[in-house]
Amino acid sequence: MTRKMHFNLFLMPRGHHEGAWRHPDSTRRALTDLELYVEAARIAEAAKFDAIFLADVLVAPNNGGLVASGALEPITLLSALAARTSQIGLIGTASTTYSLPFTHARQFASLDHLSGGRAGWNIVTSWAPQAGANYGLEQDVAHGDRYALAEEFVEAVDALWRSFPVEAILDDRDAGQYLDPARVQPANYRGTHFRTHGPLNVPSSPQGRPVYVQAGQSESGRAFAARWAEAIFTAHLVKETAQSFYSDVKGRATTFGRRPQDIVVLPGISAAIGSTTHEAKQVWEELDALTSPQVGLARLAARFGGHDFSGVPLDRPLTRVDFPDPAQVEASRSRATGYIDVALKEGLTLRQLLQKLAGARGHFTATGTPEQVADIIEDWFHSGAADGFNVMPPIVHKQFELFAAEVVPILRKRGLFRDDYEGTTLRSHFGLNSIQQDIPFAHSA
Amino acid sequence: MTRKMHFNLFLMPRGHHEGAWRHPDSTRRALTDLELYVEAARIAEAAKFDAIFLADVLVAPNNGGLVASGALEPITLLSALAARTSQIGLIGTASTTYSLPFTHARQFASLDHLSGGRAGWNIVTSWAPQAGANYGLEQDVAHGDRYALAEEFVEAVDALWRSFPVEAILDDRDAGQYLDPARVQPANYRGTHFRTHGPLNVPSSPQGRPVYVQAGQSESGRAFAARWAEAIFTAHLVKETAQSFYSDVKGRATTFGRRPQDIVVLPGISAAIGSTTHEAKQVWEELDALTSPQVGLARLAARFGGHDFSGVPLDRPLTRVDFPDPAQVEASRSRATGYIDVALKEGLTLRQLLQKLAGARGHFTATGTPEQVADIIEDWFHSGAADGFNVMPPIVHKQFELFAAEVVPILRKRGLFRDDYEGTTLRSHFGLNSIQQDIPFAHSA
Repeated sequence: MTRKMHFNLFLMPRGHHEGAWRHPDSTRRALTDLELYVEAARIAEAAKFDAIFLADVLVAPNNGGLVASGALEPITLLSALAARTSQIGLIGTASTTYSLPFTHARQFASLDHLSGGRAGWNIVTSWAPQAGANYGLEQDVAHGDRYALAEEFVEAVDALWRSFPVEAILDDRDAGQYLDPARVQPANYRGTHFRTHGPLNVPSSPQGRPVYVQAGQSESGRAFAARWAEAIFTAHLVKETAQSFYSDVKGRATTFGRRPQDIVVLPGISAAIGSTTHEAKQVWEELDALTSPQVGLARLAARFGGHDFSGVPLDRPLTRVDFPDPAQVEASRSRATGYIDVALKEGLTLRQLLQKLAGARGHFTATGTPEQVADIIEDWFHSGAADGFNVMPPIVHKQFELFAAEVVPILRKRGLFRDDYEGTTLRSHFGLNSIQQDIPFAHSA
Repeated sequence: MTRKMHFNLFLMPRGHHEGAWRHPDSTRRALTDLELYVEAARIAEAAKFDAIFLADVLVAPNNGGLVASGALEPITLLSALAARTSQIGLIGTASTTYSLPFTHARQFASLDHLSGGRAGWNIVTSWAPQAGANYGLEQDVAHGDRYALAEEFVEAVDALWRSFPVEAILDDRDAGQYLDPARVQPANYRGTHFRTHGPLNVPSSPQGRPVYVQAGQSESGRAFAARWAEAIFTAHLVKETAQSFYSDVKGRATTFGRRPQDIVVLPGISAAIGSTTHEAKQVWEELDALTSPQVGLARLAARFGGHDFSGVPLDRPLTRVDFPDPAQVEASRSRATGYIDVALKEGLTLRQLLQKLAGARGHFTATGTPEQVADIIEDWFHSGAADGFNVMPPIVHKQFELFAAEVVPILRKRGLFRDDYEGTTLRSHFGLNSIQQDIPFAHSA
């Protein structure tokens, strides 16, 4: 069987470009309107996408009100989408730093039940400054601690998801025995940061547990992904870093006794599609005209630990001294380093760098006709950079409709993408093996 | 305008009676099957019920597997129901003892958006033993502390729900201004137990915030309800205690500057309906034959702080010395006292008491033809015991279908229940005034 690629729709309500909310082609719907998300999910499902993915941030943005913000909470929204879709996977972001394992385990098990086995969990450690204050802390949890918490959090919920196997349900009306109590056992997880007794009061879900998705690129993020991730979302401005990331995480997985194909690597791609190259380029130009350097500077500053770029002229090529030392940047060091490399290599001015990042915040952007975009995708897929893509339409729904209607059929004709779903679960869409429920979790006490 | 009554469907997946899961008339669907809940919600919506209500417990039951358990988590399930219904209110239980205010505020605001203003929050303090252990605590939070936590928790989420008014959204594409940043302000709530900075990153929902529902009957529970509750669920075995509860909480509300009609009081009623009284009685007999004293004893023990009733003979009338001193029972003292009163007054044996409680766990049970059940409901409604009812069908869907098809039309003909919905929000179904969003919350720092 030929290797097939995978597609997630990474949905931002009006599109990924920071000017999209103002663009005449973006949806008029409110960010809190369920129908916006239903429309997007149905386009993705009709195109046989593996999943729809919702990011999450635990703080309100502080950008002078210049960017669209204030959408729905992902777990509730995905639960509603579960009821309005039938085949597509549903991946939600939830933090291991600011969540409660017992509640988290219940909600994601429920989502997997509600969707008939289509749930995925994007495991994040919440780097956003000020998130701690929303959760009652005096300061944010430090980067190293966040990964220690993350390991324990996943161990805890993993143990809970094994504590009440659905096979324990007898539902024997005649004998009056609903459960086999011997098969329901406490998780009894006792870590340094998290403890939970269990058992869970939701039976194991169609997939056993949600698919584990992860997106960290730091050293600790990669180590975490190698142990846990079944799918990885990753951000690269160029193919070369995507290739080295791809081979690195596939290699690391083997140290945990896993096979390379047990992890699906999905770089982000934000494609502007037009009937000619010129028309595609115009999409970016129109979007760039709708952004403000103020917003881009604030976003860049956040990636560099709050560094102030306001003294740097917008229109001369950047030099290394314009940036702080990335070794001092804790939260998102790998992305910060990537930004510096690209700026210097391509001789970008600050304005040009901001424009490059405005499209997809450090993810790869493509520009061209459907055929040209399909060529890029095929090239990454065949050259060890990707098992598929996290598709990040710059304008919703317009640019996603074009991707689904024009790019996907080309890849299908080339035998690179499915004609139809072959299974019913997200894990089967991703071509992953079922998890082994009956292996007791090694780390529970 | 005549005063109209209100109906909630309090849904337990196969019915409220503890033998219902085995009864031939109960649904065959799994407790984790969304369609079970959609079917019930649609019957309730077609009958123009105010709301559907889901209880919640944060521990797996420990009953030898003799009772059906292990259903879906309420917030996710209600979010899915929001997408499959259009008018009925959706009330979910969530704990103020074991939840995170920022996450809770986001999820319920989302549910209110997803449903177009139909969300209600049943505010509970989680008395179930062992819940603490699932949340990493060495012991459960004490009763007094739970209400101190509850006051702060509601203050915190109330402040968050006022921090990002939807009116702040300008969505001005031409000017490039999405928000008016001056209208989005930190909640900055700093209590002893909970702190949260905010603002929330979900804009205020169609109802401003969910309808506050509460069910505590203790002294601290009533004081809490008088301050916060817009609807109260309450459990009474007889009309007299319902009347005294009704006048008590309506009176207490005035000490917070509220009017009696600002709180809707809804006692539980579990009705067995038949075409004759004999047929209705048979429903209880069939159900009682499907229960085990072991399950009833375990449930009774839990209400009495773990007291062991196994030395009490099942078939002689109970005396006061068969019970522990209710003053020693902390978690659910008011219900425990009610059980003792009824047992002694009616001269019940332990077996008869267990049967009385098996139907609806201490809520009122009615038995009769549709006309007889309607008469009881009208009597309570007109004699200062109820503004409506929390309808607790003993068998789902069968006994709920009978209630909707046979009892509701009688009450409608008598002018006591609505012909159709008059508004679109749960708050309007309950006849409550809109909340005043622009009054800053007094307790935020």
